Amino acid sequence: MMYQPVEWLHDRLRILDQTRLPIEEKYIETADYLEVADAIKTLKVRGAPAIGVAGGYGIALAAMASRASSVGAFRMEVTKAIQIIISTRPTARNLFWAADRMASLLAREESIDGLSRLLVKEAVDIHRQEEDNSQRLSEVGVDLVSDGATVLTHCNTGPLATTGSGTALGIIIHASRQGKKITVLVDETRPLLQGARLTTWELQKAGVAFTLITDSMAGYCMARGEVNAVIVGADRIAANGDTANKIGTY
Amino acid sequence: MMYQPVEWLHDRLRILDQTRLPIEEKYIETADYLEVADAIKTLKVRGAPAIGVAGGYGIALAAMASRASSVGAFRMEVTKAIQIIISTRPTARNLFWAADRMASLLAREESIDGLSRLLVKEAVDIHRQEEDNSQRLSEVGVDLVSDGATVLTHCNTGPLATTGSGTALGIIIHASRQGKKITVLVDETRPLLQGARLTTWELQKAGVAFTLITDSMAGYCMARGEVNAVIVGADRIAANGDTANKIGTY
Repeated sequence: MMYQPVEWLHDRLRILDQTRLPIEEKYIETADYLEVADAIKTLKVRGAPAIGVAGGYGIALAAMASRASSVGAFRMEVTKAIQIIISTRPTARNLFWAADRMASLLAREESIDGLSRLLVKEAVDIHRQEEDNSQRLSEVGVDLVSDGATVLTHCNTGPLATTGSGTALGIIIHASRQGKKITVLVDETRPLLQGARLTTWELQKAGVAFTLITDSMAGYCMARGEVNAVIVGADRIAANGDTANKIGTY
Repeated sequence: MMYQPVEWLHDRLRILDQTRLPIEEKYIETADYLEVADAIKTLKVRGAPAIGVAGGYGIALAAMASRASSVGAFRMEVTKAIQIIISTRPTARNLFWAADRMASLLAREESIDGLSRLLVKEAVDIHRQEEDNSQRLSEVGVDLVSDGATVLTHCNTGPLATTGSGTALGIIIHASRQGKKITVLVDETRPLLQGARLTTWELQKAGVAFTLITDSMAGYCMARGEVNAVIVGADRIAANGDTANKIGTY
């Protein structure tokens, strides 16, 4: 991948500011967990998996920056950081999942340094796991897309959103890399234009043909039989298979 | 009405520049039919009925400005102006209808002054007729909207679009004036945001409650049972009742 939405630099975190795309490819580097929380809140980093990864690193940064003199004070400081980080976005389940993983480590019987190392390692593990998950999802899903297909997608679910190869968009890009001729209809995705700004940018980088359409054209294109498949992300999936995703997925 | 999208000032035409709304209420005054054609082309005046009215006046202005020395040369000049005016917008049936009415007058056995007067009178008649039509449409349609209803609308079909009281939006405003409590869900209407820019502006002036939604929220609001009626315009209506309208009406 030629770009990393979130990159761990061992003493700080590098975040691609997605609000500037596609005009500018600008990165933020910070060791301050409050800046990470702000980046999540202001959608500089977005996409449920990428938010989970950034949240994990944010908590790790809070642990590394602690000047607490006792393990109890350290646990309180990091717990406060976790609270602040999970308050940033109500929709991204991955954020709560990552925060829970980090929080459960805090209970271990360890020194401050030991806990801090555990937290950093856990954040890196969460990141690797997300990359592996989206890689596997792309491979499993690729058979859904046949050669010559026109695929409609909504919002952005590519590498930018996942830190890995992408979920819904990962499948599409993977199918294209297999040599299948794919055309993608990209919904603008109002109000924040994740489709128009981010998905088109990623497809261009990946060399996949696409046409940007307004959200209101999706139904018309489907009615005309111009869409062979619709692949979208899911913020949440219930046990019965119901999913929740960006408005307009309905 | 507190605003006129198109107003005839006897020697020139006054057009409210709808591309500046809702930020600025700016008017253009011109006696040059090419400026009228440009205003139609660049959507300064828009909405099928309003375009028809503006087109009629544009042709009248071309006739008034003619310095032709023979009736034949006059007819050629005005015919050329008609061609230019009808080439501005392919979707507005009303424009062709108005232009046809103007063109058929040109065949009359009259002097240049006589034809010129006929053309001006015809343009004024087209305007009055559109105002009457939308007034009647608002009155006929008003029973479709019951007290307490939430009405969804797409694009803009109010006074701005019609020069009269409006078509789809005219019904809604008329129902509100009858004392019915109406809430309007206004689709943004991408890509040009006629809903977000113009319909909200008109509803605010008319004192009708509204909520602006993204186009992709319309299906979701309907699925939740939050919409009691959908009222939209129609650029064309076929004999079998099929209609064509702005993308997203589907």
